[in-house]
Amino acid sequence: MHTVRSLAEYVGGTVIGDGADVLITGINDLRAAQPDQVSFLSNTKYEPLARASKAGAILVDPKDSPRFSFTRIEVTSPSAAFGKISALFAPPPVHDEPGIHPSAVVAPDAVIGEGASIGPHVVISSGVRIGARAVIGANCFIGERTTLGDDVRLYPLVAIRERSILGARIIIHSGVVVGADGFGYNFDSKKECHVKIPHTGYVQIDDDVEIGANTTIDRGRFGRTHIGEGSKIDNLVQVAHNVTIGPHCIVVAQTGISGSTSLGHHVTLAGQVGIVGHLTIGDRAIITAQSGVARNVPAGAVLSGRHALPAREYLKVEALTRRLPELIERVKALEDKIKSLE
Amino acid sequence: MHTVRSLAEYVGGTVIGDGADVLITGINDLRAAQPDQVSFLSNTKYEPLARASKAGAILVDPKDSPRFSFTRIEVTSPSAAFGKISALFAPPPVHDEPGIHPSAVVAPDAVIGEGASIGPHVVISSGVRIGARAVIGANCFIGERTTLGDDVRLYPLVAIRERSILGARIIIHSGVVVGADGFGYNFDSKKECHVKIPHTGYVQIDDDVEIGANTTIDRGRFGRTHIGEGSKIDNLVQVAHNVTIGPHCIVVAQTGISGSTSLGHHVTLAGQVGIVGHLTIGDRAIITAQSGVARNVPAGAVLSGRHALPAREYLKVEALTRRLPELIERVKALEDKIKSLE
Amino acid sequence: MHTVRSLAEYVGGTVIGDGADVLITGINDLRAAQPDQVSFLSNTKYEPLARASKAGAILVDPKDSPRFSFTRIEVTSPSAAFGKISALFAPPPVHDEPGIHPSAVVAPDAVIGEGASIGPHVVISSGVRIGARAVIGANCFIGERTTLGDDVRLYPLVAIRERSILGARIIIHSGVVVGADGFGYNFDSKKECHVKIPHTGYVQIDDDVEIGANTTIDRGRFGRTHIGEGSKIDNLVQVAHNVTIGPHCIVVAQTGISGSTSLGHHVTLAGQVGIVGHLTIGDRAIITAQSGVARNVPAGAVLSGRHALPAREYLKVEALTRRLPELIERVKALEDKIKSLE
Repeated sequence: MHTVRSLAEYVGGTVIGDGADVLITGINDLRAAQPDQVSFLSNTKYEPLARASKAGAILVDPKDSPRFSFTRIEVTSPSAAFGKISALFAPPPVHDEPGIHPSAVVAPDAVIGEGASIGPHVVISSGVRIGARAVIGANCFIGERTTLGDDVRLYPLVAIRERSILGARIIIHSGVVVGADGFGYNFDSKKECHVKIPHTGYVQIDDDVEIGANTTIDRGRFGRTHIGEGSKIDNLVQVAHNVTIGPHCIVVAQTGISGSTSLGHHVTLAGQVGIVGHLTIGDRAIITAQSGVARNVPAGAVLSGRHALPAREYLKVEALTRRLPELIERVKALEDKIKSLE
Repeated sequence: MHTVRSLAEYVGGTVIGDGADVLITGINDLRAAQPDQVSFLSNTKYEPLARASKAGAILVDPKDSPRFSFTRIEVTSPSAAFGKISALFAPPPVHDEPGIHPSAVVAPDAVIGEGASIGPHVVISSGVRIGARAVIGANCFIGERTTLGDDVRLYPLVAIRERSILGARIIIHSGVVVGADGFGYNFDSKKECHVKIPHTGYVQIDDDVEIGANTTIDRGRFGRTHIGEGSKIDNLVQVAHNVTIGPHCIVVAQTGISGSTSLGHHVTLAGQVGIVGHLTIGDRAIITAQSGVARNVPAGAVLSGRHALPAREYLKVEALTRRLPELIERVKALEDKIKSLE
Repeated sequence: MHTVRSLAEYVGGTVIGDGADVLITGINDLRAAQPDQVSFLSNTKYEPLARASKAGAILVDPKDSPRFSFTRIEVTSPSAAFGKISALFAPPPVHDEPGIHPSAVVAPDAVIGEGASIGPHVVISSGVRIGARAVIGANCFIGERTTLGDDVRLYPLVAIRERSILGARIIIHSGVVVGADGFGYNFDSKKECHVKIPHTGYVQIDDDVEIGANTTIDRGRFGRTHIGEGSKIDNLVQVAHNVTIGPHCIVVAQTGISGSTSLGHHVTLAGQVGIVGHLTIGDRAIITAQSGVARNVPAGAVLSGRHALPAREYLKVEALTRRLPELIERVKALEDKIKSLE
């Protein structure tokens, strides 16, 4: 049983307004929240939604709070505090029973850590090592000699090919393919056909990485494709052979990184970005959505557009292209005047 | 045994030309069709193909028909009529035997509707409810407490996570992932790392939706990600957490819709479109292929390009950019003339 | 036991430099290579990396060799030669035991070729024919009456729908979906809803094709979607219904090809390209990354950009758009001068 007041105490916040004793039974977003739900405001652009919300209370930043009259909980990080509260109301977690489901096919020499849960119809190949408390969802495939650290979670229908090396606490969503062959061929110019280059390398994924649904991470041609500690990759991303993604990067959905490109730490690639191969993207660089990158990017750069210009220049150029019809008229007018002056 | 005449009767059309008694054994497109096959013309840009076609007869719109001399079947909707005829020649359907395959793993408390077909190696978790005559293809995974309506069809290798709510007559193609966690993190600026935001919401998909192969639909952070009745989503599409797609929308392949964006009804997103988060896309709006949308879109708008300009303005601007080299020459010439005049 | 000299002999190359007797235990890229590893230089833009490399020897083209002082193996195709050497050091291959795993579900009337390996939890439907020595990875699904040629390899978790026709030596990576229904609807303007068009065609894939992870290849509406001999398709590519890809094409990751478009032979589509439907792309055409193609492309063309201009024109126009701010200043200056002249 929670009230606005008890939730405020739980997150170390302060209730402002007269609804402190209202019973709260759940959470919701500003638009959908009802009087028995709490919501939160993390971006001032949603202030109109907050003012119109029916929520019993709204988590707000203390610096925004004076502008409001609704019942609110002042707390320094509304989004994080809301996360804590949402855990209170979270539905019961899914049951992942420790042990190996009888329908799983596990090689006799595989090593399964204590408390690990191996789901139905999972296939675990020879030489695999799986850490303690790992959860391997239904119908996953783990190739020969792959290692998964402690507390790894694979959701159902993940394929991890042979000799991959995964650290601890990694989360991999359904449909992900780790370790497929890279896309590399030599062209036989006599026969005019493409001859496959063997990809005998591997994939290494460090601790605390999360990988979104249906993303693909190819193995190295030789050596490794490497995802650094704490990096987060969204759905439907393509990571080609021998790519290095440094620690704590963010790669948003449908982005593609071509072979042998290397990202520093804390790089952000927004959605649908494309990066050509053999480049270096510096630490903390940000590439905005739908950009194309064909040159090395210095640390800290913020680039945009098909040709990855500095974001400000890009926006200016883009705005000016809209003025092209007018500009052409102006040049035409000048030409006419010159003619009359001549 | 079908003739051109019997097929015309079947679709309520009229034979024009002398081939009415020709035996027809199949269907094909204009290019590939043989004298014992029928084809159809639905777009006047393919008239040259129709004139060159070997088809025994071609379904055409009555208003186009007078221009042709080949044997044809006049019918008001050639494409729909062709669909009806193609069903006559369709290969026998796949066998989906009702009942639960002995290799499937079905929780004891799951409720399976009458006449449903649960394929080999399917995993159905605790608390799941599956409607009558549903077909769950091989190796699918259904998470805890998910509900599927009557006559739903999941093709093989689909993953549907816990607490999803699916209506009736939904078709989901292979490789689709419904209900993976959304991509959301808070940044811990002291440790400089990304902290996962729990996604405790769910996915709701209404009646008659179809979802293409390897598309991903993330669960809500809280509340729901919602696909409205009759909407059709193509392959490899990304639908992020808390997105709302209204009824009867069309979302073409490789499009991405970011978190909390809301589409009205009858919206069309062509292929490879990207839409940023927290936007509203109005009813019947059309976004053309490869566009990027970063602002709300009014109902009925037709937008194009990286910055989603009105389609006509976009085409004009694009055409003018091609004239930039010439424009720069003209400005240079003006500068020279001015200099000589000064 | 290999030395630089023995490896040079093995690939028909010549050692230059004094390290011919150094023992070599592995391979690596220029950056990571150690003194007991060989590397290779295939692109002169990496010469600085080669000069700085610790590799025991580097495979180089004879025409580049005179510029170097490090120990090297001169050989006409360094990349191909490196491929041969890498096979010497390749990890032992994965074990694919011939025979049908007891957990596989194989229809009684399916025909499995000699020496084929059918993995755990595979589902093979009625009427399927699988060639000799084919390898069907764990949890794959093969639909009714599909045929796979000799030496085909399906990695785990591939879905191939009914009546597909696959040739010999095809490689299909995990997560691929072959033969899902195409995306086609007729709009019922009275009910304002989309009515599914049955897709009763099939997919044909010819010999020596390779298809990357999580790529989707839809079946024909009627007739076939066709991938020609020796074509190579990367990850997360969308191939729509009734597309034809000619022989020996290269289609890079995240590209989408819309319905009924036809590619000639030796076409290259770089990453994230989009091609609209019903087009013809000529032999040996090259479309650069992130381009959009909305018109037929003649044989041999090299096109770039959203509107697929000739690559040179595109680069010029793109460069000039960056000069728009300057151009507008120049026009403004001209206008001022004209005003003062008038």
